[in-house]
Amino acid sequence: MQLKYSGMQRYRNLLFYVLTVAAAIAIIWWILTMGGQLQSQKNIKSIIESKPALGVPFTAILRHNIREPLAILLLQIFVILLAGSLMGFLFKKIRQPRVIGEMAAGILLGASFLGYYFPDVSAFVFPPQSLGNLNLLSQIGLVLFMFIVGLELDLSLLKGKTNAAVMISHTSIIVPFTLGVAAAYFTYEQFAPGGVQFISYALFIGISLSITAFPVLARIIQERNLSKTNLGVLAITCAAADDVTAWCILALVIAVVKAGSAWSALYTILLSVAYILLMLKVLRPLMEQYYKKSNGGKLTTPFIAVCMIILIASAYLTDAIGIHALFGAFVAGMIMPADMKFRVQLIEKIDSVALLLLLPLFFVSTGLKTEIALLNNATLWGVCIVIFIIAVIAKFGASAAAARFTGQTWSESLQLGALMNTRGLTELVVLNIGYDLGVISREIFTVLVIMALSTTLMTGPALNRIQRRFKSSAG
Amino acid sequence: MQLKYSGMQRYRNLLFYVLTVAAAIAIIWWILTMGGQLQSQKNIKSIIESKPALGVPFTAILRHNIREPLAILLLQIFVILLAGSLMGFLFKKIRQPRVIGEMAAGILLGASFLGYYFPDVSAFVFPPQSLGNLNLLSQIGLVLFMFIVGLELDLSLLKGKTNAAVMISHTSIIVPFTLGVAAAYFTYEQFAPGGVQFISYALFIGISLSITAFPVLARIIQERNLSKTNLGVLAITCAAADDVTAWCILALVIAVVKAGSAWSALYTILLSVAYILLMLKVLRPLMEQYYKKSNGGKLTTPFIAVCMIILIASAYLTDAIGIHALFGAFVAGMIMPADMKFRVQLIEKIDSVALLLLLPLFFVSTGLKTEIALLNNATLWGVCIVIFIIAVIAKFGASAAAARFTGQTWSESLQLGALMNTRGLTELVVLNIGYDLGVISREIFTVLVIMALSTTLMTGPALNRIQRRFKSSAG
Repeated sequence: MQLKYSGMQRYRNLLFYVLTVAAAIAIIWWILTMGGQLQSQKNIKSIIESKPALGVPFTAILRHNIREPLAILLLQIFVILLAGSLMGFLFKKIRQPRVIGEMAAGILLGASFLGYYFPDVSAFVFPPQSLGNLNLLSQIGLVLFMFIVGLELDLSLLKGKTNAAVMISHTSIIVPFTLGVAAAYFTYEQFAPGGVQFISYALFIGISLSITAFPVLARIIQERNLSKTNLGVLAITCAAADDVTAWCILALVIAVVKAGSAWSALYTILLSVAYILLMLKVLRPLMEQYYKKSNGGKLTTPFIAVCMIILIASAYLTDAIGIHALFGAFVAGMIMPADMKFRVQLIEKIDSVALLLLLPLFFVSTGLKTEIALLNNATLWGVCIVIFIIAVIAKFGASAAAARFTGQTWSESLQLGALMNTRGLTELVVLNIGYDLGVISREIFTVLVIMALSTTLMTGPALNRIQRRFKSSAG
Repeated sequence: MQLKYSGMQRYRNLLFYVLTVAAAIAIIWWILTMGGQLQSQKNIKSIIESKPALGVPFTAILRHNIREPLAILLLQIFVILLAGSLMGFLFKKIRQPRVIGEMAAGILLGASFLGYYFPDVSAFVFPPQSLGNLNLLSQIGLVLFMFIVGLELDLSLLKGKTNAAVMISHTSIIVPFTLGVAAAYFTYEQFAPGGVQFISYALFIGISLSITAFPVLARIIQERNLSKTNLGVLAITCAAADDVTAWCILALVIAVVKAGSAWSALYTILLSVAYILLMLKVLRPLMEQYYKKSNGGKLTTPFIAVCMIILIASAYLTDAIGIHALFGAFVAGMIMPADMKFRVQLIEKIDSVALLLLLPLFFVSTGLKTEIALLNNATLWGVCIVIFIIAVIAKFGASAAAARFTGQTWSESLQLGALMNTRGLTELVVLNIGYDLGVISREIFTVLVIMALSTTLMTGPALNRIQRRFKSSAG
C-alpha cells in the first residue's frame, strides 16, 4: 500500500491539487463567459419554426410528459408503502398477518376512504391520468407474485396423497361454485354490466366464491406452527390442489368470457391445453436437466436470467392465447425445478421487490376501484350480506364436511374449513381480472372485495375459537 | 397422517366425489340454460344511453386501454431479455463483461439497427405509444440500480486514504470536465438543441466526459482478481470518490439547467445542501442505530421495508427539489448502515429484479434514442472522433499522470488510467438525464453513447496490453 505519504510529498501533492483545480475553474469560467455570447443555430431555427403562440418547442413538451410520470409514481409508491407499513404493523399487533394490513391500507387509500373524505389529497396523489402507470407497474408486481405462488407450490405434496386432499379440495370448489352460479342467476338482471352474457357473469361469480388464498393460508399455518401437523399438511395440500384447479377453471372462464360463448372458446381451450402440455412435458424436464447440470447447489446469474425469460415468455404466451398473463406466471413458477431448496433461494431473490415494493401498488389499484359508497341502498347491502354468507357456508361447510367424510377428526375438519375459507390476496387478483374484463360491475366488485376481506379477517379468530372449544371439551 | 385409506373407504370416497361433481355440473348446466334467457337491465340501459354509432360503452374502451399495455410490455421485456442474454453470452466468450453485451443488445434493438433495417418489426415490438411505459419501468429499474451503486460504495475506503485517491479522482474529473467545456464551445452553435443556454450545454458536456462507471469498474477488478492488490484498492477508492463527486456536480448542473442560470439555481442548491445534511447527519445515524437494535445479523422484512421507504422518499425528494430522482436513490444507498455484510445481503435481495429484469429495459430505452444513422455527414463523424479522443486522453491521461505524480509505479498508473476510462452504464444514465432535460440534441446524444460504449469496450484490451508490456519488459 503506497497510499500514505511523508509530510513533504503531501505538501507537494496538495499544492499541485489546488493549482490544478484553480486553473481548471479559471479556464471553465473564461469559456463560459465567452460562450454566453454564442447563439445556437438550432435555437434560431426552432424559434422561427415553432408557432408564435406556443413558444416551447414540441419536443420539450414531449420530454416533459415522459419525465413527469416518474415523480407522480414515486410519490404514490411512497404514500402506499408508508400506509401499508403502518397498517401492517397495526394488524400485526392485533395478531393478523401483515399482508391483511397492507390490503386494508390499499382499500383506505382508494375511493372508499381517502377519495371520499379527502378528494383533494386523493386527486393530488392519484390523478386519473396516472392510474394507467400505477396499474401497469402493479401488474408487473402481480406477475412476479404469481410466479412466487407457483414456486411455493410443492407439487410433490400432491403425489401419493392425492386421494383425500384432492377430494376435499374439489368439493370445496364445486359447492361454492354451484352456489355462486345460483347467486348470479338472482343478481344478473340488476347488477351485471351492460353487454355481458349470463354465462360469463355466472361462471365468474362462481369462480370468485371458490377461491382459497394459498399464500395467506401458507403464512397462517407457518405462524401458528402447524406445518408439521396432520392438519397443516392436509390444509397446504388442499390449498395447493385448490390453486391449481381454480386457476385452470378461471382460465377456462376467461376464455369463455372473451369468446362470448362456451363453444367459440374451444379454440382458446385447445391452445391452452397445448400450452400446458408444452410447459409440463417439454419445458419442465428440460429445466430439471439444466438445473442439475449447471447448479452446484448455488444459484448462478445466467440461471436466474433464464428463469426470468421463461416467466415473461409464459406470461406473454397465455395473454396472447386469450387466458391471462397471471396464469402463465403461475404455471412458470410451477414448472421450475422441483428442489425446494432451489425454489426458496429463487423466491428470496425476488420477493423483496415483488412483495414489498410492487405488490402494495396492487392493493391500492384495487382500492381505487372499490367504492363502498356505491352500496347506497338496502338491496345492495342485502346482496353483500347474502354473498358473504353463501361464500362462508359453501367454502367452510363443504371443506369441513368433506374432511370429516374422509376421516379427519371434527376438530381438524372444522379448522380445515376455517383455513380454506381464507380468500385473501388471490381473490383480489381474480376480482381485478373480472373487473378489467368488464364481466362484473363496480358494485359487484365492491361487494366481492368486502367478502374477500371479511373471509380473510375471520380466519384467525375462527381458528382460535375452534381450538379453544375443542381444548375445553377435551379438558 | 391419516391420508391413506383402505380399499373400501377409498371406493366410498370416490363414489361420493363422482356423484358430487356430477350433481354440481348438472345444476350449473341447468342454471346456465335458464339464465341464458335473462336480460341485464344495465345492458338495456347502456344500449339506450350509448351513442348509436359507437356501440361499445365507454368504460369498456377504457378498460381495454388499461389492459393492452401489459401485453406489449411483456413482449418487449421478453425480446429485450432474450437479446440481452444472447449478447451477454457472446461478450462473455470474447472476455468482455456481460453487462457490455447487454448494453450492446439495447443499442441493436434501438433505432440504429432494428429500427433502421427492420422498421416493421420495430414498430410491432416498440410502438411509439408504448415507449412512455417502457421508459417509466426502466426508470424504476434505474432507481433500484442507483440504490445498489450507493450500497456498493464502501465509504470507509475513503477514510484515511483520502489523500492520493481523492487527488487522482478529482484530477481525473477536472481535466476532462475542462476539455469538455472547451469542446462545447466549438459545437454549441451547430449542435445544441433550440432554447438551451450555453452554460447548460457546456456544463453538461463537461460532466458527461468526466464519468467513471463505478459498477463496471468494480466488476472488472473482481473478474481479474485485483481486489486485494494496491492497484485494485486504489482504483476502487478513486472510482468511489469519482462517483460521489461526479453525481454532486451533476446535481449542480441539473439545478443550473432547470433554473436557466447559475444564480437562479441558488435556491435549488441550498435545498440540496439541506437535503444532504439531513441524509448524512440525521438519517444515517438513525439507520445505524435502528440496524444495531433490530438486526441480529439477519435481515428482517420490516427492516427491508423501511429501506425501501427511505429509497423511494429520497428519490422523490431530490426530484421535487429539482435535482434528479436517481441522485436521491444513490444517496439513499450511501447512507444505509455501513456494515458491508448487511449491504451485500440487501443487494442480493434486490439485484435480480433490478439488474436482470428491469435494467435491460433501460439499455433499450437508451438504444431507441440512439440513432447512428443521424451521423450522416463528415462534420458529425469528425465531432464523434474528436470527442472520443478528448474523452480518452483527458480521463486516461489525467488519471495516469496524477497516479504517477502521487508515487504509483508506471505500470500501476497506466492500468489505473485504463480503468478510470470505463464510462459504462453510469455514462448512459447521465446521458439519458441530459437528453430528457433537453440539454443535448439527439446527434450529440448518439455521439456520446458511441463514446461511452467505446471507452467501456477498450478497458479490457487496454489492461491486457499494459500488463503484457510491463511483464515483458520486466522479464
